[in-house]
Amino acid sequence: MDPIVAAHRLWVENGWADCADGLAAVTSIMRVRQLLTKQADQVLAPIELTFARYEVLVRLNYCEGGLPLAVLGKLLQLHQTSITSLVDKLEAQGLIVRTPHPTDRRSTIAEITPTGRSLLLVAIERLNRDLFRDLGLSGDEVRGLIGVLTKMRRAWGDFEDEPDGDLFAVAPGPTVAD
Amino acid sequence: MDPIVAAHRLWVENGWADCADGLAAVTSIMRVRQLLTKQADQVLAPIELTFARYEVLVRLNYCEGGLPLAVLGKLLQLHQTSITSLVDKLEAQGLIVRTPHPTDRRSTIAEITPTGRSLLLVAIERLNRDLFRDLGLSGDEVRGLIGVLTKMRRAWGDFEDEPDGDLFAVAPGPTVAD
Repeated sequence: MDPIVAAHRLWVENGWADCADGLAAVTSIMRVRQLLTKQADQVLAPIELTFARYEVLVRLNYCEGGLPLAVLGKLLQLHQTSITSLVDKLEAQGLIVRTPHPTDRRSTIAEITPTGRSLLLVAIERLNRDLFRDLGLSGDEVRGLIGVLTKMRRAWGDFEDEPDGDLFAVAPGPTVAD
Repeated sequence: MDPIVAAHRLWVENGWADCADGLAAVTSIMRVRQLLTKQADQVLAPIELTFARYEVLVRLNYCEGGLPLAVLGKLLQLHQTSITSLVDKLEAQGLIVRTPHPTDRRSTIAEITPTGRSLLLVAIERLNRDLFRDLGLSGDEVRGLIGVLTKMRRAWGDFEDEPDGDLFAVAPGPTVAD
């Protein structure tokens, strides 16, 4: 049986019915994220990248002059040891370089190399073709999913509202009032 | 600006408009999962648990006689080093015990203790109250979210279909045909 359906039933049987849908939603997000990461890792394996290393490259690509490792860790919400391991691998592959911080001796900057930029473009093309283009959902379902997840992110202060930033604010389908 | 809106615009500007919604959906799932984990960690911190250790306890609670560490790692999709670290901490807390495998000398079994079971119940009560009960969405939105994520999981073979396991298969709201 689907373990999420099983967990939902368990919650109802234990008298936690009012929390069963929330449990199922949270567990579904965790599970789908694992499937997405696995799929992305498979798509990137032939070009010797993982999704975690791809995310580092994406961040560095849009930061002229690179980023301190501590800032990179915060942006990606990773522990310093994980960031160090990712940066070590990317540097060994020639996709990024470490340079000393110009003013803070204890800090190190990571910067993407031209080779890194080229490989990032290949990675994006692969992810577009084999992951982002088709999630197994209809266009309305994808937009509805983004709309609901944006509502959760807004409720938790994940981003500041801006007047013209409401691309996903009014999504069709799932924004039915309770 | 919301970084996901920014990424969506970047995709459109680069001529990848047909993949922009998929990118935004995948990135939203990754991001919401991080927020959920952070929130769950905060909810569990006062009882000296993390969401990762809670998940180990949940798995062990429903497996009479415990589970080999290798199986636990597979179920939770974690590397063996991560599982070892989680099990070390849980054992030091007296919440699980390690025992030798009865037939395979190279394998170790992890089993939940009575103290572990008691603390798990407290953890579930905390998560129910401070996370699962209110995700900042309407009831229809939560059920729509579960329905769409279930469709993705089914498409990727995350579970076997069973005749009466369609609790979330027909969700209201977002299952509008394209």
